[in-house]
Amino acid sequence: MTSFAISMSHIYEAEANVRPFVLETPLVECSLVAGISLYLKCENLQKVNAFKARGACNAVFKLSDSEAAAGIVTHSSGNHAAAIALAGKLRRLPVTIVMPKNSSSLKMAAVRSYGIEPVFCEPTAEARQAAAEKVVAETGATFIHPFDHPDVMAGQGTVALELLKQCPDLDAVVIPVGGGGLLSGMATAMKALKPSVKVIAAEPEWADDAKRSFESGTRQPAIRYDSICDGLRTPVGELTFPIIQSKVDAVETVSEASICQATIDVLLSTKMLVEPSAAVAIAVVEKLASELQGQTVACVMTGGNLAADSLMTMLQHHEASANECRA
Amino acid sequence: MTSFAISMSHIYEAEANVRPFVLETPLVECSLVAGISLYLKCENLQKVNAFKARGACNAVFKLSDSEAAAGIVTHSSGNHAAAIALAGKLRRLPVTIVMPKNSSSLKMAAVRSYGIEPVFCEPTAEARQAAAEKVVAETGATFIHPFDHPDVMAGQGTVALELLKQCPDLDAVVIPVGGGGLLSGMATAMKALKPSVKVIAAEPEWADDAKRSFESGTRQPAIRYDSICDGLRTPVGELTFPIIQSKVDAVETVSEASICQATIDVLLSTKMLVEPSAAVAIAVVEKLASELQGQTVACVMTGGNLAADSLMTMLQHHEASANECRA
Repeated sequence: MTSFAISMSHIYEAEANVRPFVLETPLVECSLVAGISLYLKCENLQKVNAFKARGACNAVFKLSDSEAAAGIVTHSSGNHAAAIALAGKLRRLPVTIVMPKNSSSLKMAAVRSYGIEPVFCEPTAEARQAAAEKVVAETGATFIHPFDHPDVMAGQGTVALELLKQCPDLDAVVIPVGGGGLLSGMATAMKALKPSVKVIAAEPEWADDAKRSFESGTRQPAIRYDSICDGLRTPVGELTFPIIQSKVDAVETVSEASICQATIDVLLSTKMLVEPSAAVAIAVVEKLASELQGQTVACVMTGGNLAADSLMTMLQHHEASANECRA
Repeated sequence: MTSFAISMSHIYEAEANVRPFVLETPLVECSLVAGISLYLKCENLQKVNAFKARGACNAVFKLSDSEAAAGIVTHSSGNHAAAIALAGKLRRLPVTIVMPKNSSSLKMAAVRSYGIEPVFCEPTAEARQAAAEKVVAETGATFIHPFDHPDVMAGQGTVALELLKQCPDLDAVVIPVGGGGLLSGMATAMKALKPSVKVIAAEPEWADDAKRSFESGTRQPAIRYDSICDGLRTPVGELTFPIIQSKVDAVETVSEASICQATIDVLLSTKMLVEPSAAVAIAVVEKLASELQGQTVACVMTGGNLAADSLMTMLQHHEASANECRA
């Protein structure tokens, strides 16, 4: 196993790089789980409405001028695409975004809102990689991976610096895990600055590769790709996994139903729209409620990009089961 | 016409009174209206998810110990009820909340969550007032009016202190108006601290008494009570109106359809749930878009207490018209 790590100096450098371009997002109290002082770190209110703005800005602003002149390329069906589009626009360099042709119209619109027409490819990992590599070969652009990239990981780690400043009494933090960029960056900062904080990763049962990898000690492949948490279907990365294994305390999984319920609970209770990929953290706190009693716990609300039709479907289910309970 | 006014010392005293109990709510950037630097003052993220927490806490913590011992009473079908319940709980005094028996189950549940069973009355202004007066006569409790009360108005005015601190470059602020407690308090502070800020009141066409009163110079009665903005159906108050007339620059009305559209636009664009009674301010900015070009404008998002079924209905209309546009 590789012993890859990122350092605190890497994260502090990222903090200085991204500060002019990203928001210090609010920390909002949440009364959803009785007996726990629960706070939401609102990256759903971040630029591009997702923490991905941090890693993308760090990676883009670390490029040399000659690298920058050749442009950047990435592949993403999600928030990383919009984040790279934003960072590229801020540094005024050429940007190519490869997107699977079945990406949601919401995410396509987000990229187009930066004046970039995505390059579409078949919806497989191989096709995405091949399309991005073709751009690199033809233009000399720098490829910026959505999570397996030290500058991206360090950029995402800046969430932990803000969180500890806003909530010095923190006992535990719950962080959704997909590829593991946010988790590895934040875990590095937490264990360096306040090692007593328990770092808990949150994952859907239907995308439980991080849990299987963490428990077996070797990266495990994804088994299914149909969780409602579109941001968490990706397996953990080659670079992120060793950090996760050494610095994360637990990986917890929860059901699709509990994730949908948590999404609606957060909306109605805290008045904020979060993606199911973020609400998974709340579902984990509900699952661990007895273990976390009396503690100060933060959940990272990683993003808020949920389409109107998906929200409507979840609300319909919510109302139908509420009516069943009333009947 | 009465020359009633509140002073800045009243508002600064309120600020000191409420600071331990209310949140400094975030100011969030909003890209909904092209060419305008638009910010949302997020009182939807306030305690009880509405600015009403400020006025209620100020009024309750200004009571003498002997007044407090006799308790407090109010009538409200909305956010003021929950705010008084919260303030009463914080000061540990007896609280009676009179609610019209047709109040929404969401608002009833909010009061009950503080361990208070509402006293129900017929849904008329007379019945509400009579029920509250009966409690005052029987118990010696202090009646705290939802808006026509100097301490309530001064408490709501503290929103302006935070807003100017967070956004010193402000050119205009758009404030929803129902009874006028928030509008009169904020206008007083704005015109004292930064008179160049244009204070614009926002009101539904279907509850346009403030506009008619403002333009005629005399308080006008409500004509209809069916606007979706349940927080704005009340006519402006006897105490709030003279302040509104002397310190507000304009009262603008907008249609029910534009208010519903703005509610969904805010949700999908800024990831925050706001009441239609708050989104009315965004609809006004959209209406005044050409006039406000290039300016820095804040809208007060007064509350976020929207029931799941109402939200679902609005989303269904939104999706239906989006599909019509696509077709």
